[in-house]
Amino acid sequence: MQIRIQTTKKQEMIDLTIKIEEILKKSKIKNGLLNIYTPHSTAAVIINENHDPNICKDILNSLNKLIPEGVWLHDKIDNNAAAHIKASILGPSETIPIRERKLQLGVWQSPMFVELDGPKERTIIITMISN
Amino acid sequence: MQIRIQTTKKQEMIDLTIKIEEILKKSKIKNGLLNIYTPHSTAAVIINENHDPNICKDILNSLNKLIPEGVWLHDKIDNNAAAHIKASILGPSETIPIRERKLQLGVWQSPMFVELDGPKERTIIITMISN
Amino acid sequence: MQIRIQTTKKQEMIDLTIKIEEILKKSKIKNGLLNIYTPHSTAAVIINENHDPNICKDILNSLNKLIPEGVWLHDKIDNNAAAHIKASILGPSETIPIRERKLQLGVWQSPMFVELDGPKERTIIITMISN
Repeated sequence: MQIRIQTTKKQEMIDLTIKIEEILKKSKIKNGLLNIYTPHSTAAVIINENHDPNICKDILNSLNKLIPEGVWLHDKIDNNAAAHIKASILGPSETIPIRERKLQLGVWQSPMFVELDGPKERTIIITMISN
Repeated sequence: MQIRIQTTKKQEMIDLTIKIEEILKKSKIKNGLLNIYTPHSTAAVIINENHDPNICKDILNSLNKLIPEGVWLHDKIDNNAAAHIKASILGPSETIPIRERKLQLGVWQSPMFVELDGPKERTIIITMISN
Repeated sequence: MQIRIQTTKKQEMIDLTIKIEEILKKSKIKNGLLNIYTPHSTAAVIINENHDPNICKDILNSLNKLIPEGVWLHDKIDNNAAAHIKASILGPSETIPIRERKLQLGVWQSPMFVELDGPKERTIIITMISN
């Protein structure tokens, strides 16, 4: 199953919880694992709190401070090396347990798509496996 | 299967190897994958060396230097933004291969629960899938 | 299935795409997940762009700037604490969806073995699960 999103900023986080829970609801999986994967090298998937959306801004700001723009070798070809570095650190996927047809997310956990070089049209692939 | 732990410090790492190997031993899985997942947004799961426990301290200290406390937007609501940022970078889960009923950990690898905002009661969910 | 590689530098990235696609081709898996796992605590697996190999250098250089060598507790025992810290941040594995017998990598994505304390002989374990 695929989710398509259009990001609107250079950097932003988009909460995937509702769309992923809809996909799980339509499936026949009772127990197992759900993998969220984004096939892009300047984007990532993380799991964190979104009740206070400032946490998303804090995560993006902290990465921007640690990995400045415009000082890398790849910037001579395509001015987005910092986005590649941040994407490698965060990683393109998360895998979450499913139990009794429910995603075992914590109360303060949301799977978030992380745009690091937008705005762009982006894809997220959802794969479920029974145990 | 769930593991419950009570952390005792603000920051610490707890080796999960023995508890996870017990869960694997009781299961009927011969070959496949074992997923370790913590449903918290100020904690993480990593895999690294624990023969020298100083490595755990080094990892926590390095993150503390890179991501200082008290300077983030979320700190106005709940003074733990740095813990959320570190948890996002380390991630809430690890997935390890199982072969011939054994976890394919390297000699110098231990799955570690990472407390970043303790002391707290914490949960770790273990999910195994056959192939 | 295992891949064995001999790294030749202290730090380098090695593209695993061709070897992993060969393993997938020989298997009977049509749809599911493929897990890439390295059982070492001073190495990692990431997914990023390798069309411009400078991105690999940028990622290694950025981590070297953030995590200097020789200033950690573990360095008194074995002078490679920085490699352990970087390995913990990047993580030892990646999990990629398989669909219609193909790895769902993006056009700009390659799974890369990350040597952080070479040169060494290294192992990568490939595990595939059908859904």
